[in-house]
Amino acid sequence: MFEQLGLIGCGLMGGSFALAMKKAGLVKRVVGYSKSPSTTDRARQLGVIDVEAPSALLAVAGADIVLLAVPVAATESTLKAIKHLVTPQMLIMDVGSTKADVVQAARRALRDQMGSFVPAHPITGREVSGVEHADAELYSGRQVILTPTERTLTAHLRRAEELWTALGCRVSGMSPESHDAAFAAVSHLPHLLAFAMIQSITGQEESDHFLSLAGPGFRDFTRIAASDPKMWRDILRANRDEVLAQSRHFQRALQALEQAMQAESDQALEDMITLASETRAHWRMGAQRSTKH
Amino acid sequence: MFEQLGLIGCGLMGGSFALAMKKAGLVKRVVGYSKSPSTTDRARQLGVIDVEAPSALLAVAGADIVLLAVPVAATESTLKAIKHLVTPQMLIMDVGSTKADVVQAARRALRDQMGSFVPAHPITGREVSGVEHADAELYSGRQVILTPTERTLTAHLRRAEELWTALGCRVSGMSPESHDAAFAAVSHLPHLLAFAMIQSITGQEESDHFLSLAGPGFRDFTRIAASDPKMWRDILRANRDEVLAQSRHFQRALQALEQAMQAESDQALEDMITLASETRAHWRMGAQRSTKH
Repeated sequence: MFEQLGLIGCGLMGGSFALAMKKAGLVKRVVGYSKSPSTTDRARQLGVIDVEAPSALLAVAGADIVLLAVPVAATESTLKAIKHLVTPQMLIMDVGSTKADVVQAARRALRDQMGSFVPAHPITGREVSGVEHADAELYSGRQVILTPTERTLTAHLRRAEELWTALGCRVSGMSPESHDAAFAAVSHLPHLLAFAMIQSITGQEESDHFLSLAGPGFRDFTRIAASDPKMWRDILRANRDEVLAQSRHFQRALQALEQAMQAESDQALEDMITLASETRAHWRMGAQRSTKH
Repeated sequence: MFEQLGLIGCGLMGGSFALAMKKAGLVKRVVGYSKSPSTTDRARQLGVIDVEAPSALLAVAGADIVLLAVPVAATESTLKAIKHLVTPQMLIMDVGSTKADVVQAARRALRDQMGSFVPAHPITGREVSGVEHADAELYSGRQVILTPTERTLTAHLRRAEELWTALGCRVSGMSPESHDAAFAAVSHLPHLLAFAMIQSITGQEESDHFLSLAGPGFRDFTRIAASDPKMWRDILRANRDEVLAQSRHFQRALQALEQAMQAESDQALEDMITLASETRAHWRMGAQRSTKH
């Protein structure tokens, strides 16, 4: 149970965290700050936060837990802005989709207060953004990856694990580097491909006609292409090398399929599709532990 | 209103058509045939068909409407098998995802009976197949593309339009060639990319670990990768040139995004993502006419 949550960034991720903490009875008071005053104001009107802070620093004042829900590129400047009020008792987490860059930014910004920081990545999101879409259930049933550094205080790591578990998440830990490699493969590259798919169509003369004919397969395949541009620009920049490496893996797989098509080797083509189809048909989100599909 | 539907292929598409026709009160009796006797048997047990036919030819005997719901590659042999019982009064349709090849196959097989054939592509489907998943609502609210040839009898075209409209579909017409170009872009390529995405991951040592971390974005992006391998092998073969042309468009778009990442030109990257994101966010399935998302 926490006394006061200092929420920096009152958008979809931050707002949903505040609502989930309140719903679970894990926090008494939420003090929120967003770069845009209208967002902070809207968050208060919607009951996502209880008090508006005029700055990130003042959102941290008196908090025993702080959540950074800002674009990953803003991590360092935000942590520098709050550093003077960070205490060793304070649990600080982020919700960024990349971790190596966030950990480096935290090292530079927090220095001797690095022990308070538990890097976190809840595997959830929406193709919509903004506090209006904040949802107390956004994290429920999802995985959360914690990527503690050697400087992270064990006590804070435990509290973070307990907190996310209490919000209905399954918590696991890994290094920032292996986190970024894995999510380049299963999240960042799919987003890049979805952006490219839409770009590929809009670049053609008949794009409007094509799009008017697209059905449910296209709808689901491209859903993530509607994601927040600034957020994804930052993610693709922050995890560039891993994403480009995964894109090379993907392009080799695509070329193998195209070669089978060109060579009219039906069996080879069918075998490749069968492997993909069976793998996907047996895959369940959240591994063996969940059968939710 | 039809007296008897001759259903050739009692899988997801054919079975759902039979159920929809019965539910709408558009047919009195369904005589069904599937290559596998156990499928035909199961279709009867499930009430999808009323009578089992021992052959495709006998499924057509006495029918005033015939639906071919077989893999596109089997179109010619199936039409040849039934040709001797095809009458000018009979409406024959398929539900294939490619049209130029189907029309060519029909020309070769039906010859002087070509007037009875109305090539149809209902824009729907599932990542699951088989009569067990047949659903009277599969076609409801979907688009259906008819690609009549110069030989198609107008009377049959009208009856086909009325039939699909009565099943709750929005009917439009185009040439087989423009159909195949459009669906290479919005359906066939996305499937190829989804197959390649899964292949790309399974080809890596950490694939199981990667897949255990994948979330809802990956789930929706790869849903179509679970589609029926034989069906998609045939579609990719039948529409190969258009699909490969669309893949080249896609790879150019992907390369442009990667170049922006490599050049660290944040603005260019953000602009490209923004165009994709806004296009997708404003797109609605079924064009302006529907706001279903």
